[in-house]
Amino acid sequence: MQNAGAGNQIEAIKENLKDVKNIVMVISGKGGVGKSTVASNLALVLAGKGKKIGLLDIDIHGPNLPKMLGVEKERMQSPYENRIEPVKISENLKLVSMAFLLPEEDQAVIWRGPLKMKIIQQFLSDIQWGKLDWLVVDAPPGTGDEPLSMAQLVPASSAIVVTTPQEISILDVKKSIDFVKKLNIKLLGIIENMSGFKCPHCGKEISLFKKGGGKKLSVEMRIPFLGSIPLDPNLVDSADRGILYVEKFPDAPATRALKGIADKISEKK
Amino acid sequence: MQNAGAGNQIEAIKENLKDVKNIVMVISGKGGVGKSTVASNLALVLAGKGKKIGLLDIDIHGPNLPKMLGVEKERMQSPYENRIEPVKISENLKLVSMAFLLPEEDQAVIWRGPLKMKIIQQFLSDIQWGKLDWLVVDAPPGTGDEPLSMAQLVPASSAIVVTTPQEISILDVKKSIDFVKKLNIKLLGIIENMSGFKCPHCGKEISLFKKGGGKKLSVEMRIPFLGSIPLDPNLVDSADRGILYVEKFPDAPATRALKGIADKISEKK
Repeated sequence: MQNAGAGNQIEAIKENLKDVKNIVMVISGKGGVGKSTVASNLALVLAGKGKKIGLLDIDIHGPNLPKMLGVEKERMQSPYENRIEPVKISENLKLVSMAFLLPEEDQAVIWRGPLKMKIIQQFLSDIQWGKLDWLVVDAPPGTGDEPLSMAQLVPASSAIVVTTPQEISILDVKKSIDFVKKLNIKLLGIIENMSGFKCPHCGKEISLFKKGGGKKLSVEMRIPFLGSIPLDPNLVDSADRGILYVEKFPDAPATRALKGIADKISEKK
Repeated sequence: MQNAGAGNQIEAIKENLKDVKNIVMVISGKGGVGKSTVASNLALVLAGKGKKIGLLDIDIHGPNLPKMLGVEKERMQSPYENRIEPVKISENLKLVSMAFLLPEEDQAVIWRGPLKMKIIQQFLSDIQWGKLDWLVVDAPPGTGDEPLSMAQLVPASSAIVVTTPQEISILDVKKSIDFVKKLNIKLLGIIENMSGFKCPHCGKEISLFKKGGGKKLSVEMRIPFLGSIPLDPNLVDSADRGILYVEKFPDAPATRALKGIADKISEKK
């Protein structure tokens, strides 16, 4: 019975996502590598190119995308029974997040794995995603219940791995790559975030989180390298203030890097 | 029967930890705020003051403490049946981590919640911790299975919350505070990490992750503020290379901040 139930769930998800061309999970081994920043800005770049994009935040304990995209006060609407509509960010971009379901933004979601699996199922089967070129899924760090649920519920998904250059992050990202391989998920490639930093006062390079670790890893593990995004205080500030960074800073090096990555991903499909 | 089993487990843990004076969980809402760096360096400072310290890494998917402390090649020993000894870092400091149980360091631990609860139980009931002044527990980010298991298995524990100053991190840390309150854990206070940054070339202040957000939050929520630790590239580099930062850089501002925090925590007990 349990298996039949799971089978039905997967069928319901398949039916609901039948007009979604590509599903990509943005994952990382370590937290704080800028995974949500990368996921949201990649979604913005792709939407800016005229693609229809859905953004799904499956970080149940720390859902930050609504605040980062300046829509934390919005709520999902349910005009029909059992069907819920995502929050619209722009013409081509829709967002779904646990944050929209919380009465207070500072409330903790004290849930164990099975309940998290359940809500992710519902995000996939009950949300009216409509036609999408890409469904970009922002997963919490690590290789636990949330990315595992996604992988099992949507077997056709692919993944992008985000890391910072420092070794501790590289150690964890190797675990993410192991995870992706073991679950037979297609790995689109690695992104190195916070890659190098120039002092905004004197212009000199500061070795903060170092540089090149992600690129080196991609060569070592024979995985496509999608690009390096430099550290930019404006990117941190934009996330804090709900400013759409790539739109406000179209010529910044980080924006150019994100655009290059979006092109590479588009080519892969 | 299940409840009796859980009761027995809690009794076994209580018996095993009977010579442990204080248990403190280091938690954060968001990943990458330097929680492991803070936990390990605080443990080093306390051990340096002559206290007996145990360090328990319950980040099952990204256990980084062994690498940060330069002991990733070591393994726990089991000279007696059902009893496991922690890895010794120094005379006064012992470490236990999931990383010591993995055959390969880049292997992913693809576990759901119940299995994580099980291993945390064993870390608490089967490890020969001996006499400790402090058992410092490094939890993964968020309010999920791992910190929840700790809170339920060791009802007498207390917590320290680590945040960076930027707003996205403050949003998540509010969830951690809500978690601590809901589970009746004693909150020792907040630490603001990566608080301010000076360019190592020109010496000018760079507003990277900003400054003061943690302090402001502590006033707003009437929670003790334990201190601010400035961002230091040597701290990142030491974690990568397994160098004991507070010992190698005894006069650095970050070390002085960590020492001040250790004093405050000691006073609280």
